[in-house]
Amino acid sequence: MAPKTPRTTTSAPAAPSGGVSRRGLLAALGSGAVGAGLVGAGVVAAEASARSSSGSSGAGGGSASVVPFHGEHQAGIATDVQANLHFAAFDVTATSRDELVSLLQDWTAAAVALTAGKEVGAGGATGGRPLAPPSDTGEAVDLHANRLTLTVGAGPSLFDDRFGLAAARPAALVDLPAFPADALVPERSDGDLCVQACADDPQVAVHAIRTLTRIAAGRAAVRWAQLGYGRAATVDPGAPTPRNLFGFKDGTANPAASDTATLDDQVWVQPSDEQGAAAWVAGGSYLVARRIRMHIETWDRTSLQEQEQVIGRTKGSGAPLGHAGEHDAFDARTLPASSHVRLAHPSMNGGAQMLRRGYNFTDGTDGLGHLDAGLFFLAYQRDVRKAFIPIQTALARQDALSEYLEHTASGVWAVFPGVPQGGYLGQQLLSV
Amino acid sequence: MAPKTPRTTTSAPAAPSGGVSRRGLLAALGSGAVGAGLVGAGVVAAEASARSSSGSSGAGGGSASVVPFHGEHQAGIATDVQANLHFAAFDVTATSRDELVSLLQDWTAAAVALTAGKEVGAGGATGGRPLAPPSDTGEAVDLHANRLTLTVGAGPSLFDDRFGLAAARPAALVDLPAFPADALVPERSDGDLCVQACADDPQVAVHAIRTLTRIAAGRAAVRWAQLGYGRAATVDPGAPTPRNLFGFKDGTANPAASDTATLDDQVWVQPSDEQGAAAWVAGGSYLVARRIRMHIETWDRTSLQEQEQVIGRTKGSGAPLGHAGEHDAFDARTLPASSHVRLAHPSMNGGAQMLRRGYNFTDGTDGLGHLDAGLFFLAYQRDVRKAFIPIQTALARQDALSEYLEHTASGVWAVFPGVPQGGYLGQQLLSV
Ligand code: HEM
Ligand code: HEM
Repeated sequence: MAPKTPRTTTSAPAAPSGGVSRRGLLAALGSGAVGAGLVGAGVVAAEASARSSSGSSGAGGGSASVVPFHGEHQAGIATDVQANLHFAAFDVTATSRDELVSLLQDWTAAAVALTAGKEVGAGGATGGRPLAPPSDTGEAVDLHANRLTLTVGAGPSLFDDRFGLAAARPAALVDLPAFPADALVPERSDGDLCVQACADDPQVAVHAIRTLTRIAAGRAAVRWAQLGYGRAATVDPGAPTPRNLFGFKDGTANPAASDTATLDDQVWVQPSDEQGAAAWVAGGSYLVARRIRMHIETWDRTSLQEQEQVIGRTKGSGAPLGHAGEHDAFDARTLPASSHVRLAHPSMNGGAQMLRRGYNFTDGTDGLGHLDAGLFFLAYQRDVRKAFIPIQTALARQDALSEYLEHTASGVWAVFPGVPQGGYLGQQLLSV
Repeated sequence: MAPKTPRTTTSAPAAPSGGVSRRGLLAALGSGAVGAGLVGAGVVAAEASARSSSGSSGAGGGSASVVPFHGEHQAGIATDVQANLHFAAFDVTATSRDELVSLLQDWTAAAVALTAGKEVGAGGATGGRPLAPPSDTGEAVDLHANRLTLTVGAGPSLFDDRFGLAAARPAALVDLPAFPADALVPERSDGDLCVQACADDPQVAVHAIRTLTRIAAGRAAVRWAQLGYGRAATVDPGAPTPRNLFGFKDGTANPAASDTATLDDQVWVQPSDEQGAAAWVAGGSYLVARRIRMHIETWDRTSLQEQEQVIGRTKGSGAPLGHAGEHDAFDARTLPASSHVRLAHPSMNGGAQMLRRGYNFTDGTDGLGHLDAGLFFLAYQRDVRKAFIPIQTALARQDALSEYLEHTASGVWAVFPGVPQGGYLGQQLLSV
């Protein structure tokens, strides 16, 4: 769990340099604010002030609660799963490639500040000119970084003629096929860009998406968004695997963050995977999101034995059926023929693995007296043609679990490679 | 913050006795399960098993994370605010008073188990007969009590002729009037019964509402539900006041849980308040819920000065305008005439105070590119005729803040007095 070191107010870091456009962020916060006057006056800058008032302390503070933003790969994928999710898909409304670049530069500057637990803009929430809108909306003041990660990707629709990116579309970024029993709501699906915000505090994740939305004004608009929760951030790392709303441990078979060989093989796009204009995607990954409504009332009327046969693991310990320990090795062919774990297992799918990072959701009711609840399935992989698509094809056809599920939304994105110091999100794609 | 004492598996407590019907909970979990056969076999009982697997530890564990269920008043009102909310309103579908009583008895037995961090039913999530549905749905196994409180109340609609309760309707339980600019959605408003589940883990709160929903099958159905968040549970008690989505500290002027004189005066219904058949409500309170959509995009374009004039407090420290400290005493008449804090202040409202316990919400998007976000306002008070109604009347007419708000749902409930050992929720109302 997050260490309890009190956080001291740190001095503002230097403004991001290099690929990041300071002027862009000025304009972004300015346009969401009072327009050119504010920008002209130069009060809003791509600088960040520490997001803590003097004397405050608490968990989530301290630099150990900061997940570094820069690196070879984006954070938020092989990062230990945080407690809370706010996910948003955006329609790009920018009409030129330059505008798209400026948006991604501004998002980068903001993401650098936010993931460091800083307020965005020169004055932050309260330090600006009183007659100007604050550059930071303020609801995350005092909440620290709380392991915030922001992970950004580009959907198939970004690679149309609008920005001259058609040739740069990776061959692996295919449109997902329709699967049997899909019940997708188009307005809740897809999107030119996606942002996954994960943090150990819900308000920190929501503040981040709100801030990026605000910065995007005039250049991109939220298409849909989803809130999700795992467990409270108070649980220590040795804690048991979290459970989904069917009461089963979920995430057992995930590759470990430390297993870089498996991650290179299964999660990160390798330089050899794409050639030419699409080579930019090396170091990135593909994200599939599925909003899966779970029919918990029906499930709750099913016997324990039936539930375990459907999953292929025991409910209490999470062990594969016929085994004692959650992490025991097992032969998938010994599990029931239509069990979820058998059908999804790498050995039944040409060795393909995904890194699943889903969150539970509960969105009020369905209007029929039932909770509208389920799993917001998020899975990262090197190639959807080898992982999600064949696995979901098998599951949708044969999986006993499907009877209790309804896929209500879907999206796929090519997640940008990591951002080097001074670079910006998507630079590998947009600077060619 | 929650202590880190590792939790040891405790033995199951004795089944609730006295007013609580063991048979009722049997039937409840049985009917949601495989019907009379299960009940006949006697495998599901109103007993609880500890909700932790052996060897698990972590925050949220330990008896200090348990808020006692029994007492003079229900927990969840003067309880230090927890990080997460799941609120549900129910339509009672029971057709007899006996059935209503059995529902409340079964809810009580379950609430005793849940708030103690136990699984519901004899076998819990995995210890029952394999051919029967588990008595507990399992997603909160290993998550401990996490300060779960369950707070239950009765809405005006419960006091019609269905259950012979018309004479017992408290005079103070008035229907809320329509306020200027209300934009209420009826399907998201009101309800015969309400349950407020608060915990320091979202999954614990969701599990509790799901469990009560399951137990209610055939006797009550969820009408609407709302998820809310405050801050992560990792923040220690000395932490700053949480902020709402307008970036201001929210809750500053609340009466302290230790200030029993103010609570008796302003929050708890006193024996002298109601006579005759309505006297049952003494020791209870009145809850007003308002789902308030906040137009954050408009707010974000407003200057810092304007924002502070609208609220009447400074954004950074939360101090009343013209003062230095958040908790400085102030004369409301020195604040701007149309400021929120001036208009809502006790001195402008005949001394009336409420205990506000609201949570922020973010429910996806509004379909127009904006986040559907705001405050799920929850306020407890001794008499809505003296507190919420006059205050909201003034606010809706004059408050500069109203311009940025839209009240989209509403409800009012008489919250039951506390449950003594062996008693059940609402017994004071239903046993007369
Ligand atoms: C609400 C829907 C779903 C539920 C409740 C669910 C539940 C589970 C559970 C309980 C496990 C076993 C524990 C673990 O290894 O994590 C599991 C494993 C797995 N699931 Fe799902 N799952 C769902 C959807 C999906 C989907 C849509 C896919 C992919 C198309 C998928 C792919 C997998 C894979 C690859 C494994 C690991 C199998 C192994 O290697 O042992 N799941 N799931
Ligand atoms: C989204 C809507 C609302 C927002 C953003 C909001 C915000 C605030 C803020 C920032 C404060 C000052 C800090 C504090 O004392 O907690 C406050 C105080 C207060 N608010 Fe609200 N409020 C909202 C709705 C309401 C409503 C609907 C009512 C009642 C009808 C209300 C009644 C009060 C009261 C009684 C106070 C304390 C005043 C005092 O004694 O100083 N608020 N509110």
